[in-house]
Amino acid sequence: MTESDIGRSDAESAALDSVAVIGTGMMGTSVALSLRARGLQVYLRDQDPAAAAVAAARGAGTTEDPPGPVDVAVIAVPPGEIALVLAECQAAGLARVFTDVGSVKAAPVAAAEAYGCDLSNYVGGHPMAGSERSGPMAASPTLFLDRTWVLTPLSETTPAAIETVVELVELTGAEPVMMTPADHDRAVARASHVPHLVAAALAATLDDADDAVLRLCDSDILDITRVAAGDAKMWSDVLSLNATDVAKVLSEVAADLAEAAAAVAGDWTQLTTLLRRGNSGRALLTGALFY
Amino acid sequence: MTESDIGRSDAESAALDSVAVIGTGMMGTSVALSLRARGLQVYLRDQDPAAAAVAAARGAGTTEDPPGPVDVAVIAVPPGEIALVLAECQAAGLARVFTDVGSVKAAPVAAAEAYGCDLSNYVGGHPMAGSERSGPMAASPTLFLDRTWVLTPLSETTPAAIETVVELVELTGAEPVMMTPADHDRAVARASHVPHLVAAALAATLDDADDAVLRLCDSDILDITRVAAGDAKMWSDVLSLNATDVAKVLSEVAADLAEAAAAVAGDWTQLTTLLRRGNSGRALLTGALFY
Repeated sequence: MTESDIGRSDAESAALDSVAVIGTGMMGTSVALSLRARGLQVYLRDQDPAAAAVAAARGAGTTEDPPGPVDVAVIAVPPGEIALVLAECQAAGLARVFTDVGSVKAAPVAAAEAYGCDLSNYVGGHPMAGSERSGPMAASPTLFLDRTWVLTPLSETTPAAIETVVELVELTGAEPVMMTPADHDRAVARASHVPHLVAAALAATLDDADDAVLRLCDSDILDITRVAAGDAKMWSDVLSLNATDVAKVLSEVAADLAEAAAAVAGDWTQLTTLLRRGNSGRALLTGALFY
Repeated sequence: MTESDIGRSDAESAALDSVAVIGTGMMGTSVALSLRARGLQVYLRDQDPAAAAVAAARGAGTTEDPPGPVDVAVIAVPPGEIALVLAECQAAGLARVFTDVGSVKAAPVAAAEAYGCDLSNYVGGHPMAGSERSGPMAASPTLFLDRTWVLTPLSETTPAAIETVVELVELTGAEPVMMTPADHDRAVARASHVPHLVAAALAATLDDADDAVLRLCDSDILDITRVAAGDAKMWSDVLSLNATDVAKVLSEVAADLAEAAAAVAGDWTQLTTLLRRGNSGRALLTGALFY
């Protein structure tokens, strides 16, 4: 993507000037840094003032209160807290438009409805970028470059709100992709949530590994288990909020592996079939991403 | 490792001059290329003459027969065929010492005993390096640099045979590590075989993935599933030859994931516990490899 491709070349779009980022962890601070790099005014808030101060010291924005409503508030808190924070920010008139960066989308909408939030100026979002590290020091202004950033507007969302959040996403260098919350949650179970749990279960087999095992570990298992370093509490919350879709796919994987465990001592054909299905899935994945 | 660290500085060791490589796939050709780079004479054989010709054209050695017994024959064929090839090569007097590069170690020894092979001049080996690509064109002379290369001498193996194979391993730039065949197989089940099957099972969940799922796949799942591109037939053979150890660890992973599938909809504590065990295993792994 070049400078000239980005939002402001579109005469229709209202140029963004000011953004509030609520929650200055790795993700929120990365959003803030990428928008500061494009010259926007960014206001930082975190329930831990020290975290907001660290983000500010990294150049992500100011910890002062905005003088009036900002153009967009980016809610970068754990998915289980998005709805409450949205309700509070809307009540305080913090912004004209609201979005979030949570990795589940249907549950926060249901909770926001229960809190009586205004859903006409809220566009849920999920940037497909992350890190197994957490906190503002792990943030990067280039985290979203050329990444997919899912947006999940509802039937009641106004076109102006969608346009504003699309502009914000494009300013970070990401590519906005529209989905329904349900489609997002189903897809992300396969693409991210179940892979995370599988990597964790595999890493868990090494939690009592002796020297002989560790000496035989190579770059393959390092790559496979990298995400297993992610924050356990945060991931547990995410997975629980996408329980139905995750449980369905995870049951498939668990059954495949239980069958493979039986097959490995007996029916080699079945084992080869699973490995060939793995070849197919991998080919589909690399084909979709690289060609 | 510098030039001066390598084998020939030891006045006790008989310098290697000639090596035969039986099987010019990715692994055999990589061994041949790394030894050619150290100036050794390398004789190449493959049941597919075209594969041997490709390896020779890449500079891995000659396809001519050696004039007499070579110093070492490196048997680089699938693990299920090692014992038969060893028996044939010993009967033909191809080399003074024999080794192999198979990723299972106990089963080939048992088969070699059944074939009546001479185990005094045979030292099993397994370089902890590889590629999801196969064939001589995927080979690299630097594949083994700074990698662990397990050797599994038996009680009847002569010290001279061990010394010769240690010298060969060091010439490739790898670090030899001694283990019993049983210890190797138990360790490699956790470090490599089960991770491969788990990655395959995960990639298999994508073999019918739609565009929405593929758009949400990021570098995390690419890393986790990379090894699932490996040759299904070859891996099926390897896993079947290490059935007992693989089945044991795989059953643990399958049970953990089945429990997680149940927990995700209910008992979040149990889910967090699995994720924390994953954190521990990952920390042990990176700690052992990097510090």
